[in-house]
Amino acid sequence: MFSPLIEDLIRALRCLPGVGPKSAQRMAMYLLEKDRDAADSLVRALEQAVEKVGRCSQCRTLTEQEVCALCNNRHRDQKLLCVVETPADILAIEQAGNYHGRYFVLHGHLSPIDGVGPANLGIDLLEQRLASEPLEELIIATNPTVEGEATAQFIAERARARGIAVSRIAHGVPIGGELEYIDGGTLAHAFNSRTAF
Amino acid sequence: MFSPLIEDLIRALRCLPGVGPKSAQRMAMYLLEKDRDAADSLVRALEQAVEKVGRCSQCRTLTEQEVCALCNNRHRDQKLLCVVETPADILAIEQAGNYHGRYFVLHGHLSPIDGVGPANLGIDLLEQRLASEPLEELIIATNPTVEGEATAQFIAERARARGIAVSRIAHGVPIGGELEYIDGGTLAHAFNSRTAF
Ligand SMILES: [Zn+2]
Ligand SMILES: [Zn+2]
Repeated sequence: MFSPLIEDLIRALRCLPGVGPKSAQRMAMYLLEKDRDAADSLVRALEQAVEKVGRCSQCRTLTEQEVCALCNNRHRDQKLLCVVETPADILAIEQAGNYHGRYFVLHGHLSPIDGVGPANLGIDLLEQRLASEPLEELIIATNPTVEGEATAQFIAERARARGIAVSRIAHGVPIGGELEYIDGGTLAHAFNSRTAF
Repeated sequence: MFSPLIEDLIRALRCLPGVGPKSAQRMAMYLLEKDRDAADSLVRALEQAVEKVGRCSQCRTLTEQEVCALCNNRHRDQKLLCVVETPADILAIEQAGNYHGRYFVLHGHLSPIDGVGPANLGIDLLEQRLASEPLEELIIATNPTVEGEATAQFIAERARARGIAVSRIAHGVPIGGELEYIDGGTLAHAFNSRTAF
């Protein structure tokens, strides 16, 4: 219905997560009708990020620096290391504000079906850190999915073999969450993991 | 929290309509973590569209062609011309499927406060078409807002001065809409515009 180049743009915008045909169309119209400067800024930001953003050599989070700001921060507790699946998980934990150690980003979880093994998750690098840093506790914050649990087990064994204490963040009913709105899986886990009161 | 280039990308994505901080972050992570090809495609599509997409010389819709596919379609009824505010309105009308005439896109509505006058809406070009084409009816489909109505009045006078019949698409309760969920303005309009039964 639109001209070929506009259809191309709508198609490219649809690749963004959470963008359906209607919103891709609205975005394309907005960029072409109202704000071509925003389109130019987006082009430049995408080009720069795709060209320059790689992974931190220590924690593997996304960054254009050799070592990210968090790894470079001397005020972070070197005795604590938290393993997460994605860079966005770091943001969520930092926003919670009560963890002051360092991180390690797996960029996924073990998934033999998809061909994702330890090498893809940077386990070699993690082992190097376990061997060389003054770690006292490894906190595993992978997601509470089947794959996330398997990944947690795998990493926990490696840390225990080096005499490092391993913990797993708690999963259960969210604080302020009302039971009737919690999914069954979460609730079942909350019962299985109940603690003495 | 993220590195500067990633924050730049998140900021650029937030300029898209309907994209808040959380979704901009999710989009940036997706493009950098999972699909850099999608990021490249988006860059190319944006560059091409911003560089080449302009306005149809006859109807002013967005297109990279001198004359758009609709204006070039000889099967469209040359006796009918429908005036709309935006290119997306054409898509909505085409999807309804019962209009087979041509279009004219204002790219907005009269808005003296914002400095939008007849020249910005291409009224000169519209007048040329009213003068030179074998039009029998001008259908005004501007939005049912104060500005859309004022714009409709303005254009209607010009068409009537040339002896061309003018109509306005109907506004009221949507077909299938339930009265209790319709906003008051629409309902008031529906009462004022009631027809004999
Ligand atoms: Zn780092
Ligand atoms: Zn046209």
